Amino acid sequence: MVVKVLVEDCLTNGEKDKMKKVIVAGAGLVGSLQAILMAKKGYDVDVFERRPDLRKAKEIGGRSINLALSHRGWTALELAGVKEKIEEIALPMTHRCMHDLEGNLTYQPYGVNGEAIYSVSRGKLNQVLMNEAEHYDNIDYYFNHKTTSVDFKEKLVHMKHDDTQKKVAYDKLFACDGAYSAVRNRMQRLRPFNYQQSYLGHGYKELEMPADESGKHRMRNDCLHIWPRGKYMMIALPNLDGSFTCTLFFPIEGPLSFESLDNDDKVLDFFKEQFPDSLQHFPDLIEQYNENPVGHLVTIKCDPWTAYDDVLLMGDAAHAIVPFYGQGMNSGFEDCTVFHQLHEDSKGEWKGLMEAFSDKRAKDGHAIADLALYNYLEMRDLTADPNFLLRKKIENKFAKANPGKWIPLYSQVTFSDIPYHQALANGNKQRAIMDEIMKQKDIHSRWDNEDIMQMMHELIQQKQEA
Amino acid sequence: MVVKVLVEDCLTNGEKDKMKKVIVAGAGLVGSLQAILMAKKGYDVDVFERRPDLRKAKEIGGRSINLALSHRGWTALELAGVKEKIEEIALPMTHRCMHDLEGNLTYQPYGVNGEAIYSVSRGKLNQVLMNEAEHYDNIDYYFNHKTTSVDFKEKLVHMKHDDTQKKVAYDKLFACDGAYSAVRNRMQRLRPFNYQQSYLGHGYKELEMPADESGKHRMRNDCLHIWPRGKYMMIALPNLDGSFTCTLFFPIEGPLSFESLDNDDKVLDFFKEQFPDSLQHFPDLIEQYNENPVGHLVTIKCDPWTAYDDVLLMGDAAHAIVPFYGQGMNSGFEDCTVFHQLHEDSKGEWKGLMEAFSDKRAKDGHAIADLALYNYLEMRDLTADPNFLLRKKIENKFAKANPGKWIPLYSQVTFSDIPYHQALANGNKQRAIMDEIMKQKDIHSRWDNEDIMQMMHELIQQKQEA
Repeated sequence: MVVKVLVEDCLTNGEKDKMKKVIVAGAGLVGSLQAILMAKKGYDVDVFERRPDLRKAKEIGGRSINLALSHRGWTALELAGVKEKIEEIALPMTHRCMHDLEGNLTYQPYGVNGEAIYSVSRGKLNQVLMNEAEHYDNIDYYFNHKTTSVDFKEKLVHMKHDDTQKKVAYDKLFACDGAYSAVRNRMQRLRPFNYQQSYLGHGYKELEMPADESGKHRMRNDCLHIWPRGKYMMIALPNLDGSFTCTLFFPIEGPLSFESLDNDDKVLDFFKEQFPDSLQHFPDLIEQYNENPVGHLVTIKCDPWTAYDDVLLMGDAAHAIVPFYGQGMNSGFEDCTVFHQLHEDSKGEWKGLMEAFSDKRAKDGHAIADLALYNYLEMRDLTADPNFLLRKKIENKFAKANPGKWIPLYSQVTFSDIPYHQALANGNKQRAIMDEIMKQKDIHSRWDNEDIMQMMHELIQQKQEA
Repeated sequence: MVVKVLVEDCLTNGEKDKMKKVIVAGAGLVGSLQAILMAKKGYDVDVFERRPDLRKAKEIGGRSINLALSHRGWTALELAGVKEKIEEIALPMTHRCMHDLEGNLTYQPYGVNGEAIYSVSRGKLNQVLMNEAEHYDNIDYYFNHKTTSVDFKEKLVHMKHDDTQKKVAYDKLFACDGAYSAVRNRMQRLRPFNYQQSYLGHGYKELEMPADESGKHRMRNDCLHIWPRGKYMMIALPNLDGSFTCTLFFPIEGPLSFESLDNDDKVLDFFKEQFPDSLQHFPDLIEQYNENPVGHLVTIKCDPWTAYDDVLLMGDAAHAIVPFYGQGMNSGFEDCTVFHQLHEDSKGEWKGLMEAFSDKRAKDGHAIADLALYNYLEMRDLTADPNFLLRKKIENKFAKANPGKWIPLYSQVTFSDIPYHQALANGNKQRAIMDEIMKQKDIHSRWDNEDIMQMMHELIQQKQEA
């Protein structure tokens, strides 16, 4: 494929070019979605991607990353007109299914009203988005183009393609190039640009649980399965082909860690002891364990998300988060929705638009990053705690009886459009209320009584007046 | 000057090369000092610097950055054998001199026992260190060499020199290349590398206060002058030539800010109102104000400070901090002292040495970064507060009467070797005690009474038992 937008050909000309030249860095989920939304508005969009076309790559055996798609993601997909196509490849999960040490199962609904989150393959989703994008005459993909530098003043992206250096001009550049964004790396030299990358002491290893002999799922496929073990956990999400992708989240170093499980016996003993009911479903546990790498988990926060009001970070490039709230992709997709809305409101006026987006959205990026970190504690620890489960039961009862008065934090994040920073603030208020409720005498026997509900009303009233 | 250490010439050979090839990135203060210390141990050291030799550059008119050298810095300079040479260019400052809105002056001693901090020109200090370094046969400087990349596995630094690319091999690389370290920028891609850069909303502008007609200082030259104004401040440090370097620390944007003072009248009115006694000493205030740029203030924290136990970040590259504790250079110099000591203890065994340094020292880098941020509040705000001044008086009285039992936080940081993280913890304990003391009835009249001293003894005892 020929690069059409070398600097000399570029249409950048303030006066005659009413339709800006839009470049998207990164052909991943957010990049492809943003390309579609910009193309729908009539812009000429070129998408540059460091890697080869994933649709032409061989499938990587034994590894399939899957994601939990939820409300915010669906909203953006609908806006892009691809909702139906994605529904065909998504599996609804209505419950958490918790596995204890004896293999006993506890089910907990995700939503108050039967809502589901959807397991979907990252690769498949990306393919659908790229195929859809290529239906647009005004979108072109350029693969194997690695961003090496950005000249923000001259509005040029320096790229390397097949060992040749190229300069691509832009009017507006959307940097959707992921957690290790090359564009952001260049922005880091601008002042003042605040930036933080922090790694969790825990990493992850993926393990494939294949379909059974009849091609069926070996566990209920309408659940996200969790083996919460306090300091660590394993989870499993169903795939379309009857398999599950399991992920062990575990300390990288230390007395019980990926490092300490340094031979096959130790690995097997660990699984026997901690995840006994999973063992029968892993015919090749040891092979997979030895073969699959340990991944790191990074949180990235930065601010502002724009450089010179011409370059905008979106998705993981702006806010890479840990996966424990299932909001990595959803928050990236919501970036697209929010930008789309601001662009509509601006009626074609680009001046100040990216700055306005950054002002509005960065605090939501920071909030979902914090929420995701917190949810690791909840998933690995609290989901096995009777007090936590009771808390959820009381909350859900109250929420169901008083719609609009109480939306559990998980539902605010997962099943609503409430800005993340507001959800975080609401959640903190709700936690304070539930702390009071849980202090009530004999709460485990009395939780279903009407006076508890009454007390919640009063505490909410007090908070509102405070 | 010819680059002698191209990869093919390099002596890197595990068996015969007992003496490691040491590269220092950055010929600044810390880089030059570290080069001397390593050369003294017998290592062959090459120092690569992005900029031209500052000794050959013309002096930049009207701007002279000066620094406050104190105990930790002196310790390292003595170790390098250059203490006497630096003493010749350093001016002792024994007091803070606070200027109020009417031009009234209040003096406050820095130390309990008459200790001083020393005003020294950054450029002059660097020159002395470079001249000293060049006395060593086994140190070579290479200027105009810009680090473009580092191959940590192959142990090669990629550099650009006069438009040619070079690769320089190292056994051990000390990255002393400052707050915007190119080496650290490459380390950022390694996992897990935690990194944070955050800009203060306040910036700074330097203003030169020239010597008077007889070449003398226009204010007392044994003080660091402060005009504390709550939300902002100006300071002045004396230079050898009779001038002072003044620095205005001020919000970058907002209702009263560098941005809001957008014409000469506003600037003049501001100085008349806020720093009236300084005005007579600035014959060309407006010219300077308009000409001199607004600088940004960044804090950088990262961890670990080493890559592969072969590359070590030191000084600003590891811990750039805001200037309000006068510890930027001192903490960088102390890095050299601490490394020197660990190296001595290791008796020539390099394995684990850089990792040990990072483990030991990074928490001190984080602590001094936090202390420096806090001290901005203290300098601009609290130094004009009677409660704060009384607090200091009580602390100093107790410290003087009970040597070893109470070292004020400022003294721990400035006049001791106590690791910064420990000083920070001590300071927090002391603040809690002083909070109690300041709550005592009529403390402003009773502070000098013996029962207050007795109460401090008791509170210290309680803290120790807790």
